[in-house]
Amino acid sequence: MRDLSKDRSLLAINSATVKPWTLEQLVEGCVRTGITAIAPWRDIVQAAGVEKAGSLIRAAGLSVTCLCRAGLFPAADEAGRRAALDDNRRAVDEAAAIGARSLVLIAGGLPKGSKDLAGAHRQVHDGIAALLPHARESGVPLAIEPLHPMYAADRACVNTLAHANDLCDQLGDGVGLAVDVYHVWWDPDLTAQIARAGKRILTYHVCDWLVPTRDLLLDRGMPGDGVIDLRSIRAMVEATGYNGHIDVEIFSAQDWWKREPSDVLRICLERHQTVV
Amino acid sequence: MRDLSKDRSLLAINSATVKPWTLEQLVEGCVRTGITAIAPWRDIVQAAGVEKAGSLIRAAGLSVTCLCRAGLFPAADEAGRRAALDDNRRAVDEAAAIGARSLVLIAGGLPKGSKDLAGAHRQVHDGIAALLPHARESGVPLAIEPLHPMYAADRACVNTLAHANDLCDQLGDGVGLAVDVYHVWWDPDLTAQIARAGKRILTYHVCDWLVPTRDLLLDRGMPGDGVIDLRSIRAMVEATGYNGHIDVEIFSAQDWWKREPSDVLRICLERHQTVV
Repeated sequence: MRDLSKDRSLLAINSATVKPWTLEQLVEGCVRTGITAIAPWRDIVQAAGVEKAGSLIRAAGLSVTCLCRAGLFPAADEAGRRAALDDNRRAVDEAAAIGARSLVLIAGGLPKGSKDLAGAHRQVHDGIAALLPHARESGVPLAIEPLHPMYAADRACVNTLAHANDLCDQLGDGVGLAVDVYHVWWDPDLTAQIARAGKRILTYHVCDWLVPTRDLLLDRGMPGDGVIDLRSIRAMVEATGYNGHIDVEIFSAQDWWKREPSDVLRICLERHQTVV
Repeated sequence: MRDLSKDRSLLAINSATVKPWTLEQLVEGCVRTGITAIAPWRDIVQAAGVEKAGSLIRAAGLSVTCLCRAGLFPAADEAGRRAALDDNRRAVDEAAAIGARSLVLIAGGLPKGSKDLAGAHRQVHDGIAALLPHARESGVPLAIEPLHPMYAADRACVNTLAHANDLCDQLGDGVGLAVDVYHVWWDPDLTAQIARAGKRILTYHVCDWLVPTRDLLLDRGMPGDGVIDLRSIRAMVEATGYNGHIDVEIFSAQDWWKREPSDVLRICLERHQTVV
């Protein structure tokens, strides 16, 4: 059995965790701290320039666990769906350019004015199906990330691993899963659905659920500061054969985003070794 | 087929919707407006005095769809679990005294300091099992209400109709379900789990999911102001044979709780006829 307390090489830093930083700062901070992998959001990759971002990351010898994020498929009309598909194809190209091991997709919510949840589900399926040929040609695996049900209306109408696993069953090769503890920890079906996911798990994300949670979007906790049984969920994920990085992704407008990013990195490293 | 637009006799008002009112004011307001049923919370029943509350409600000829709420079973130690059970037995007595057709139970969250979700699930099962003999003797059906997953940590660790249906399977006669659209609307398994529930549905609650939702607890919308497809979910519930009242329950610190309760009643009646 692996000694988790010493296994710091598995830590990856998601750029959302150190939101004030540019890609250049993130790369420099990780290299300086001995962190071997990053998970950038598209905004900082685009700000750096996609080709330059790839060169920078390769020169630093960093792995890219995933590119965050694309998806957001449902739209009120055909033009909206086409625009979403075009943007998703660009995201695949960006992921390929920086050598990302997967592109994270979130479903998208209800189109404005719509109450048709089943229709939105169908649009998500059809959108991923339309994106898939380009992703396969580009060698970029798509990682469907179910988001917490509190985001069903406005961000993502795929909210359980069961639903995401169903989509993988339907869509076939080239589609897998992003598992983020924040979104799935509450699910009574978690153990069964992670086992069912098996080799589909492409990327694994951690943070913590705070009590109280003061904001639906921007009040995630540092691993260890909340109620999620991180070691148990990690054990479930690793029992599937997953041996990739563990990506710390924290949205925290009132706390972690206000701190010095270098301090945040140091604490991520500590927590990775003690509680993740 | 029933003409929904005229069927105002099915509206019930939950006391949480008109939070500034006492039980006396709620009863008087409903009688004046031609509303035939209420769903009081325990606080206003206790404030009126339980026996007096029963007399008042009976004299007014109102139905009591359910008493809200008891449950909250998990605790850190045996003394805590015993205190919860004692309080639940008192809630059963209160429900019987006011002629409530069911007692709503929410599960309760993780005990303070605990990350053991599976253990909390077991405590919920065992707590309901311990309460059940007294509820059966008292003729008070227990209505397990799954709450939205965003409450899993601190209010209720039973968050899906599938889990609540499983508990009903395990616990047998005297246990059913409270279905509140706010908690279950997002569930991709909703149609199947409502059909599975069948005759178990003891009480049906509506409000709406607002976009954006500004607070996890106290920002529910008036039916029609959000994204929930209320008529579709009602059709699923009524297809099981449910023909009871539809209880409007809105927690809304910044909006509806600040309005004149008589106006809120009037708008509930309008929305009941147009969108519920």
